[in-house]
Amino acid sequence: MKSYRKELWFNTSSRREFLNITTEVQRCIEESKIKEGLCLVNAMHITASVFINDDESGLHQDFEVWLEGLAPEKPYSRYKHNGYEDNGDAHLKRQVMGREVVCAITQGKLDFGPWEQIFYGEFDGKRRKRVLVKIIGE
Amino acid sequence: MKSYRKELWFNTSSRREFLNITTEVQRCIEESKIKEGLCLVNAMHITASVFINDDESGLHQDFEVWLEGLAPEKPYSRYKHNGYEDNGDAHLKRQVMGREVVCAITQGKLDFGPWEQIFYGEFDGKRRKRVLVKIIGE
Amino acid sequence: MKSYRKELWFNTSSRREFLNITTEVQRCIEESKIKEGLCLVNAMHITASVFINDDESGLHQDFEVWLEGLAPEKPYSRYKHNGYEDNGDAHLKRQVMGREVVCAITQGKLDFGPWEQIFYGEFDGKRRKRVLVKIIGE
Repeated sequence: MKSYRKELWFNTSSRREFLNITTEVQRCIEESKIKEGLCLVNAMHITASVFINDDESGLHQDFEVWLEGLAPEKPYSRYKHNGYEDNGDAHLKRQVMGREVVCAITQGKLDFGPWEQIFYGEFDGKRRKRVLVKIIGE
Repeated sequence: MKSYRKELWFNTSSRREFLNITTEVQRCIEESKIKEGLCLVNAMHITASVFINDDESGLHQDFEVWLEGLAPEKPYSRYKHNGYEDNGDAHLKRQVMGREVVCAITQGKLDFGPWEQIFYGEFDGKRRKRVLVKIIGE
Repeated sequence: MKSYRKELWFNTSSRREFLNITTEVQRCIEESKIKEGLCLVNAMHITASVFINDDESGLHQDFEVWLEGLAPEKPYSRYKHNGYEDNGDAHLKRQVMGREVVCAITQGKLDFGPWEQIFYGEFDGKRRKRVLVKIIGE
């Protein structure tokens, strides 16, 4: 069994943003030389997500509006977590969108349906944050 | 290390439906001859889910009502994604229910609690769609 | 490839509770002697979650209020699942928070960001329930 590990770093210019990281993850799989296995991709921060959905800007605007409806950013006073911070909403949004994805690797490639794309979902950005890629297989 | 891959195909007669796929997944594990490992089961489409919960029809009606409350199908105009499509709600519902499950395999079987059952959750059906089963182990 | 399996048992004194189980999971990894691999941690019950977020009591109170808003416990009559039971809300809350986490193991340790902690999320407690830890790797 082989294993591979890499950190991907991001620094978004706005508080909330969705970045397509599919190409970076595929590059990790190629570097790993693993042909058959599983690839874990997870946010290393608890106010960010890694998820799989469509790379369509209308949908991303829908996600933004929908998540703001489910867990509004403001007023900051609505969250007990915000005694010392202002990111209580980001911890909740990340639960809806998820921390991680596990992807199949088949013949050295992401084994994906035609529209699957991997996103880094930032909910408390404007600073350097990390995603972990861990691959095991053969 | 061994690996195994199979696609399961579904075509639901209604837009939204929950199908119990536990038996099909267990059959994959038997075919794989893997006794100890991990089994990834994921929707290959971004308007469908794979999740684990109870096989109880009252609960499935509760899921339907609850998800319609969180991300209503109509009016279609409420989603920017629906410029060319009418399935914006399905992309959101799938985020709540999740894309995938990772299951332990122990002694050649799904290592489950007494009530755990695997479901395919369709949110934009009436067409052929796929689930991927990928198993690694020994 | 090595594999390892362990059940962790919990019995919360209230219906809903969040327990930090990071130390127990790290202990499993040490017992497994696996240095590089993947660690699945999942609730074996369908009214409980395993998730990763912050160990901060204000945030946990925010989770409680937020989940009660999304899927209220009462009136019990609001859920069809509650014909024979009173835990319909717990099945929904667990979907928001998730069934499982998959964690990377690197150099024999949980490969985590600085604030990541693993929680058992109980939504229908006051009885003995289980979490499964399954590790594969080398």
